[in-house]
Formats: sequence, C-alpha cells, structure tokens
Amino acid sequence: MRIYLDNNATTMVDPQVFALMEPFFTQNYGNPNSLHAFGSDTHPALRKALDQLYTGFNAGNEDDIVVTSCATESTNWVVKGVYFDHILNKNKNHIITTSVEHPATIMSCRFLESLGVRVTYLPVNNEGVVEIESLKEAIDDKTALVSVMWANNETGMIFPIKELAAIAHENGALFHTDAVQAVGKIGVDVRAADVDLMSFSAHKFHGPKGVGGLYIKKGCRVTSLLHGGEHMGGLRSGTLNVAGIVGMGKALELANAYMDFENSEVRRLRDKFEDALISVSDVLVVGKREHRVPNTILASIKGVEGEAMLWDLNKQGIAASTGSACASETLESNPVLEAIGADKELAHTAVRFSLSRFTTEEEIDFAIDVTTKAIKRLRDISSSFSYAPSWHKSRL
Amino acid sequence: MRIYLDNNATTMVDPQVFALMEPFFTQNYGNPNSLHAFGSDTHPALRKALDQLYTGFNAGNEDDIVVTSCATESTNWVVKGVYFDHILNKNKNHIITTSVEHPATIMSCRFLESLGVRVTYLPVNNEGVVEIESLKEAIDDKTALVSVMWANNETGMIFPIKELAAIAHENGALFHTDAVQAVGKIGVDVRAADVDLMSFSAHKFHGPKGVGGLYIKKGCRVTSLLHGGEHMGGLRSGTLNVAGIVGMGKALELANAYMDFENSEVRRLRDKFEDALISVSDVLVVGKREHRVPNTILASIKGVEGEAMLWDLNKQGIAASTGSACASETLESNPVLEAIGADKELAHTAVRFSLSRFTTEEEIDFAIDVTTKAIKRLRDISSSFSYAPSWHKSRL
Repeated sequence: MRIYLDNNATTMVDPQVFALMEPFFTQNYGNPNSLHAFGSDTHPALRKALDQLYTGFNAGNEDDIVVTSCATESTNWVVKGVYFDHILNKNKNHIITTSVEHPATIMSCRFLESLGVRVTYLPVNNEGVVEIESLKEAIDDKTALVSVMWANNETGMIFPIKELAAIAHENGALFHTDAVQAVGKIGVDVRAADVDLMSFSAHKFHGPKGVGGLYIKKGCRVTSLLHGGEHMGGLRSGTLNVAGIVGMGKALELANAYMDFENSEVRRLRDKFEDALISVSDVLVVGKREHRVPNTILASIKGVEGEAMLWDLNKQGIAASTGSACASETLESNPVLEAIGADKELAHTAVRFSLSRFTTEEEIDFAIDVTTKAIKRLRDISSSFSYAPSWHKSRL
Repeated sequence: MRIYLDNNATTMVDPQVFALMEPFFTQNYGNPNSLHAFGSDTHPALRKALDQLYTGFNAGNEDDIVVTSCATESTNWVVKGVYFDHILNKNKNHIITTSVEHPATIMSCRFLESLGVRVTYLPVNNEGVVEIESLKEAIDDKTALVSVMWANNETGMIFPIKELAAIAHENGALFHTDAVQAVGKIGVDVRAADVDLMSFSAHKFHGPKGVGGLYIKKGCRVTSLLHGGEHMGGLRSGTLNVAGIVGMGKALELANAYMDFENSEVRRLRDKFEDALISVSDVLVVGKREHRVPNTILASIKGVEGEAMLWDLNKQGIAASTGSACASETLESNPVLEAIGADKELAHTAVRFSLSRFTTEEEIDFAIDVTTKAIKRLRDISSSFSYAPSWHKSRL
C-alpha cells in the first residue's frame, strides 16, 4: 500500500488534468505567439484556461491574472516589484509580513533587509495565527506592502485575510496574500477578500509543477520580475507554458467543483485521523480544527522525533512530512512550532499529515493503525520519554 | 500536409522526451524535497537529467547548472543580479549588450537604464554580427557585464562568443551569453568558450515549454532572482518541475546525439530550400550560410509583405515566421533587419524559415513549391513591385 498524506507539499496531477495537457507536448506544440495555425491552434485551450482562472478566483474582467512558473516567482515578483515601485528612490521603506510565511516571502524580505528596507515579521498567537491588532500596531505611513498567507502550509490555520487587507488599505499599503495552501481547500474569492495581489501554484491543487500565477487587482501596478517579450500583456515575459496553463485552469475548475467534497468528505477523514491521533496520550494537534483548512493536521507527538516517525511511516508506504518540503532536507525543528513559542524539543516532534480528495477511508484506517503503532514503538525505544516530566500539554 | 518550419520559435517535444516525462504527472508526483519514497523516487531521474545537462554543455563539476522556468528568467536573473551585486551601491555602472539581442536581454537592460544604469547596445555589421572591435571600444573599467547571444534567433548567425568573453574578462567584466538559439544546432561547450553565465531553454531543442536553465561558472556569484526555499542549492527557489527537468535533460542528450545529423542532413535540406529561394529574382538571405546555425534562413523577398507571405504559407499548412515569436503579435518590421541597416520597406519583407531534425525532404520540396508560387502570386498583386527601382540587392 502506498498512501500519500503529504498533499501540502505537492499533489498528484488529476488524471483529467493530465489528459487535457497531453496533446500540447508532441502534437499541438506551437508557440501561441506565432502567426500560423500551429500557434493559433493553442488559443482556444489557453482562453478557456484563463477563463477558468478568472472564474475560479472570482477575479474582475479588468483585473490581471498573470501566469508565472510558481508561487515562489509570484511572491518574489511582488516583494521586489514593491521595492522598485515604492521603496528605491521613493518615500516608503517598510514591509510587513509574518514570522510563519513560506520561505519565498521570508527570504525575499530578508533580501530587501540587506538593501536597507525595514521589515516587520508579525508574531503569531498560540494557535499560529496573526492577530489583527499586531498589524494595526506595526503599520505606519511608510509601509509599502503587507504580505500575509491565506492559510498556513504547516498548520493549515486560516488567516483573517479580509480584515488584514482592510487595515493595509486604510494605511495606504498594498496587500498581498500567498494563497498557495488555501486554493482548492477553501473558497478563495479575491474580490470578497479585497486583496491587491495573490500568489498561487498549480501543483498544490492537483495541477502540474512548474506553473503558478499572480492575481493583480485592477489599477495595481507591479514592476515586472521577468522583462522581455510581450507575453501576458507585457507583465511577465517568457514563452507560454501551454500545457501547464491548460492544466492549471482545469485543475482550478476541478478544485472548486470538489469544494463541497473537500469540506465534507476530506474533512471527515481528516477529523477521523485526528481523533485517533489525539486519543493517544501526549499527542497534540496545533490549532482548532474549525479554524483550519479541511485537509491538514500538524501533530506534536511527545517523545518522538519527527524524522523517526517519518521513517517508520515511510517503511509502511505512508508519506507525511515534518513541515514544509521547501526546507525539509535539513533536520531542523519546525519553524511554525517555534514561532508559536514551543521549545526546541517540542518543535522537533512535529509531523504533518495532509489529505486530498483522492485520500480514501481505507487509507486513513491503515494510517491510523500504522501511526499509533509507530508512536508506541518509537516511545518504547526513546531514551527520555518514559521518565520525561508531564509539561507537554501545557505548552500548546 | 502540416509543415512546421518555425523551430526557432518553439519545437515539438521529442516523443522520446515526452515518454520519460509522462510518469511524473500522475504517478511519480512526489516533491523531490520530501523525506519519503514519493519524494526520493524522483531522485534517480533528476540526477540523470542534471548529469545530461552537465555533460551536454561540458560544464565542470564545480560549476552550477541551475534549472529555471525559461531562458527569459535566466537572463533577467543575470541582468538584475549584476545590478544588485555590482552596480547598486557599488563601483560599476555599465552593461554592454547588442542591438539584436532577444527582448529578455534588451528589456531587462532598458529597465536598468530607467534606474540610471548606463547600457551600450553594440551595433551589428551587414551580416548581423557584432564585431570584436566594437566591444573593445565600448568596454571600460565600469563595465560590470557583457551579454551577447551565441546565435541570433532571426538570422541564425553565430557570434564570436569565445573572443568576446576574452575581452570581457580582460576588462574585469562578467560575460553572459543567451545560448537559446545555439543549443541543439551547434556544439555549445561552456568551458571551451569560457563564458561565466549562459541561458538556455528546453523548448528550443525539443524539450518541454516552461523549463530552462542558467549555467554559472565556478566562483561566479549572482544574487538570486527567486529567493525562498533551499532548492537548487539555494540559488533558485521553487518546487522542482520534475517532469520538465527530466525532459530537458533527455532533450539535450538527444540534441547532442543528433548534432552530426543537424550539421549534415538538416543543413542539406536548409541549403536546398535556400538555393531554391535565392534562385528567385530579388530574394535575399541574410548572412553567409557557413556562418549560420544549420537550420535557419532569414529571407527578404522584395515586394512581398512578410505577413502576407505567412498568410499564404499558412493556408497551405506551412508554419514560418517574420522574426521572433516573442514580439510577433504586432505588425512590426523585423528588428534585426533594421539593426543591419535595411530600410523600413525591406525590413517588412522578412520571412524566417527554421528547420529541425524532424523536417523531411518531402516537406522541403513542398515548401519550395508553395513558397515560390506564393512569391509570384503576391508580387502579381503588389501595387508597387512591378515598377520599383532595382535598389534591392545593393542594400544587403
């Protein structure tokens, strides 16, 4: 049995999505910008894909949805665009983000810090969520950008995007959200939330890797990250990744079509798994489940190293994570648990399980069995667990 | 019959390449950075692909080959990286490129000009090639970067990269080359040419769209364009496009395996087509064929609008171009012909034919027939051709 419970790291391309992409490799391979049938033959599928993106995010006709290579590109574009548009030789000098953002945001901001930009990393509360008051305190008239994720990649906690965007706007700042972990899990409506900019990535919602996008609200200008030809209205140059765009459009359409299923069946399986986990003594899950996207569990299993647990699970064919795959090659403690205020030992016990609409009840039953046995086995061989003080529950 | 003679715009993915990519969409879809079998199952194919890139370009083990989303990204990375590393708050302020570069280079440089950077756009001679003397004259101790393409996208002319790189190095400048139109057509050996940085794009050599790369010589540091996770040794963040990388590696291996074929059979068919074209009165081809990559013809057909010719060819199923697809949606004159010094009327008569290893003799025979008939038909309905002065040949 191979059970994939790491859907926040990446997802399987939906076979329906791949079926639509397939002709664009060896058959309809034209460059959409070419003035001949090989080029124009790609246009209906591209138009449909863009329609699917606009509909899927409820974007206005005069807004821009620009295809990029991934959300990391989209977020770098925003942060560096804001540097060129509002900070370099201009009157603003401040960016606000959070301490639990994806590395694409954190490291782009750190880069700007190296250029003298002031960056505030808002803390999170003990559920891992940014509080509105902390943004109100940090923002001032020098703030050019507020960037806060829509849902956290590790905990699955949903952030109060609409309220945060309103505060940014009241203070004359742009509001960007990294919606990578929200799309396909909860409704993402750019107009209802009134965000200016939003990053997303196809491979997190059963589309292909190597394609993502940036939503840009009408009237909001961001200096290009990729200058060049006149692709995407001159906003993002580079030959269009036709197969990728077609796949991303369909993937978003499907994700929204399955939203009720995500919110009922995926949630039910997640809750079943979570109930089984927390029924084991000294296992905690971060954040109230009703404040999370429906597919995610970040568990802290006292006395068990996260990597040891992954190893045990992997031997049984189960894929999980200790946190973001984007930095998982090093054996570091979970940064979100650290941000929440857990101590180093606790942060090393994090295991993330993330389901998808392809996860079955049989898989979850098997995962419950394997995980609970692994906890017992690993605790039995732990040098410290059996006599550790019982401080664990009080920390989260 | 559908005949694709626009391989400088994009190419068909080789079916052998696609066969290798296919499992990575719906089966081996793991994130390579994940610590479980779904992740590590992708590693052998990724390692092989990187080996194919290193071997294919003759890169040293300590050089970096970083996968990007396209050559446009690679080139923007270089130009903007040089801005941050050597110009902003540093002692250099000058970049040298040419007047016939791809828009990715030209527009990145124009962007830096808007920030106060001095940019020199070297002219080309009447064959469309940059002369070494012009670089010697333009370069000084404030020059941070020299960026010159390896082969021109429109004419196919090969530039003296090794000699230009040597001059850049003698003057303490980095040397970057856009090798997009050279890879797969002529040998591209980064160590023999001694370039510091080189952009390339898979979809120009029968790999997929949406993936490319940047070669970085050992010891050469370029500030990242995409900050974030620790992918690609921290140089370029973003979840790895596994299928794209696997496809690009195989595509480069095949391109090099077919190099003799490209230089003999593709060249023979190109020359056959070219001979037929120039046997028509008042048809010129830019640049000596022995100085060009083997697959490209940029023809100027007196009295015939390029777009009218494309239309006629397209009706017969033949795909060609008036120049770069990256700017072909607007009816502009051919910028390379303009740079060479042709007047506006002549620059509007450009048609580019670009073959590939999939082009057959039957296709070329058909294209010769269709093209020569189209020239006659379009000249017959031209309002000016029949009584135009015979200045045409003297201009090129």
